[in-house]
Amino acid sequence: MFEHRIFNFAPGPATLPEEVLAQAGPDLLSWQGLGAGVLEVSHRGPAFMQCYFDAIQHLRDLMSIPQNYKILFLHGGAIGQNAAIPLNLMRLGKSGPQADFIISGLWTQKSRLEASKFGTARIAASSDQNQFRQIPERDTWDLSPDSAYVHLCDNETVGGVEFPDAPHVGQIPLVADFSSSILSKSIDVSQYGVIFAGAQKNIGAAGLTIVIVREDLLGYAMPTTPSIWDWQIQAQNDSMINTPCTFAIYIAGEVFKWLKKQGGIPHIEKVNRQKAQILYTLLDNSSLYVNHVDPRHRSKMNIPFFLKDESLNERFISQAAAAGLIGLKGHKSVGGMRASIYNAMSLAGIQSLAEFMQEFERLA
Amino acid sequence: MFEHRIFNFAPGPATLPEEVLAQAGPDLLSWQGLGAGVLEVSHRGPAFMQCYFDAIQHLRDLMSIPQNYKILFLHGGAIGQNAAIPLNLMRLGKSGPQADFIISGLWTQKSRLEASKFGTARIAASSDQNQFRQIPERDTWDLSPDSAYVHLCDNETVGGVEFPDAPHVGQIPLVADFSSSILSKSIDVSQYGVIFAGAQKNIGAAGLTIVIVREDLLGYAMPTTPSIWDWQIQAQNDSMINTPCTFAIYIAGEVFKWLKKQGGIPHIEKVNRQKAQILYTLLDNSSLYVNHVDPRHRSKMNIPFFLKDESLNERFISQAAAAGLIGLKGHKSVGGMRASIYNAMSLAGIQSLAEFMQEFERLA
Repeated sequence: MFEHRIFNFAPGPATLPEEVLAQAGPDLLSWQGLGAGVLEVSHRGPAFMQCYFDAIQHLRDLMSIPQNYKILFLHGGAIGQNAAIPLNLMRLGKSGPQADFIISGLWTQKSRLEASKFGTARIAASSDQNQFRQIPERDTWDLSPDSAYVHLCDNETVGGVEFPDAPHVGQIPLVADFSSSILSKSIDVSQYGVIFAGAQKNIGAAGLTIVIVREDLLGYAMPTTPSIWDWQIQAQNDSMINTPCTFAIYIAGEVFKWLKKQGGIPHIEKVNRQKAQILYTLLDNSSLYVNHVDPRHRSKMNIPFFLKDESLNERFISQAAAAGLIGLKGHKSVGGMRASIYNAMSLAGIQSLAEFMQEFERLA
Repeated sequence: MFEHRIFNFAPGPATLPEEVLAQAGPDLLSWQGLGAGVLEVSHRGPAFMQCYFDAIQHLRDLMSIPQNYKILFLHGGAIGQNAAIPLNLMRLGKSGPQADFIISGLWTQKSRLEASKFGTARIAASSDQNQFRQIPERDTWDLSPDSAYVHLCDNETVGGVEFPDAPHVGQIPLVADFSSSILSKSIDVSQYGVIFAGAQKNIGAAGLTIVIVREDLLGYAMPTTPSIWDWQIQAQNDSMINTPCTFAIYIAGEVFKWLKKQGGIPHIEKVNRQKAQILYTLLDNSSLYVNHVDPRHRSKMNIPFFLKDESLNERFISQAAAAGLIGLKGHKSVGGMRASIYNAMSLAGIQSLAEFMQEFERLA
């Protein structure tokens, strides 16, 4: 490891594979022997187009994305897609623009609020009564047959809850925000109509948004859909109706290659389970730390926890930083601590954190 | 100069200052001694927030942006703003959503088409009858007092026409696309209501969009404006209602510092004039090359030219590449050649190109 690198548990932007970053440096000055860096070449030139198509193919391979799904690399983050999704899909509602939302935390609340600008954004289920400590139980969902789609967030980074698998919702397309769990585990893409994700957690650089959309859902955009978010137009133009985030696409491609080299999703999923288990076991056996999430719905990417004696919070953060462990402060809306442990967080990082936490508890 | 770098005349993404790129490499692995790279740190953490505020201040200094203008760093490119501008401003129209467009080439045509999704997008003037070889003469503009704003593109990269200065349009806010000319010359910001620009030409990395907006124009967004493009909301949240393009903001800040070190706008404007003059003088004295643009409106950033014998085009491109001069192919819609010579293109690069062109003509 590069000697000055530390363990960074930030929720996103987040730690990235060191070998990808080490390669990116020289590529900024001259990429592929071109004499110009990756930031400087035309997005429509042969070198970058190859980089784009390779990245698409790597993602298709890694996630086993069926051929009847388009992969788009867009601008605007997942919050941008919170508008783009209703703009592209809500017209599929049987009696006017409408969609159902499964509210499991902050991100689905935000998604629903944005969607309500464009039509009826129904709360089909919510776990707010349980302080978002679980995914709403499937048998409580009140889905409308008139809705264009059902929106959920696979993994809520703030509350630390994660869907154990894709819920069955019948014929209505399932639209899922995978910003914080994409590529962290195997998923059956065919269970979803749309999968979308900001890139700044498991994929790379902030600015890039991945949209994976089933082809039969293209072509229904409202006339007021901004062109850069019209999925059909972007699908017909290789995501390039304007200059895409070229550097973020390059980084994504390199991260995909890195992931393949690690052994792909089957390998990383195993490591991710192991990483999460180390921390949850520690939390469950601790008399200082506590995690409140329903064990069935615990996130393997974001592990929020609290010190039972909150007066120790500041000391915990500062001693952790001194031990080379940063980014552990919990989201401002809930407080406490949070360890975000995406694909690029190594087992060694988890072990360091666990050792620190045990030592801190021992001395507390 | 890094030994393998060549001269890159691509229209954008485009060549960047080598010293900025050389610094960015190490910063990807560890930035500001943090032990984490610039891609990996939280956008809301103290290091990145300082980087953001510094970049804003550098831009304000460089362009002498008055205090009653907000500077936003957004997602989605200038093409994204083609939707965001009418969404934010068209409601200011006196008898319904309406805006005026000065059509001077491909980019203003695109901007108008996108705006027409949200209201009446009037053609107040157009130079299409002159194959966009000039800016429409000011005395032909048919401005409507009912329009919310007048939209123009300061520099059209495809046709190679540039406004010599800000036109007078009375009280109606002037909205100007400066994607290809921002920071290339001194401009009087107070003459504009809104200045916007994609970053991938004079500022840095594709993905970042700069919006400079007079404060009294905030607060009129249509209810269907996506949150990430609601200028007022973004102004109240330091451009961070979602994760911004952190790397592109970092690069922008470094380019701003580089530009200050060069002597700021007064210096770069002088160099840019000199660079353009070398090439236009060559073109005007050539019997092989020709530029068709009205000399009053010739761009100092993008210089399109044609070989009178078009059968030589391919040889020109390949010999130029062999001489270390790339990115010279003209836009597909007009053909021929184009030298894009933004701030980071050195005088040495222009001299190399000029020597190559003269030698090519001599041997042709």
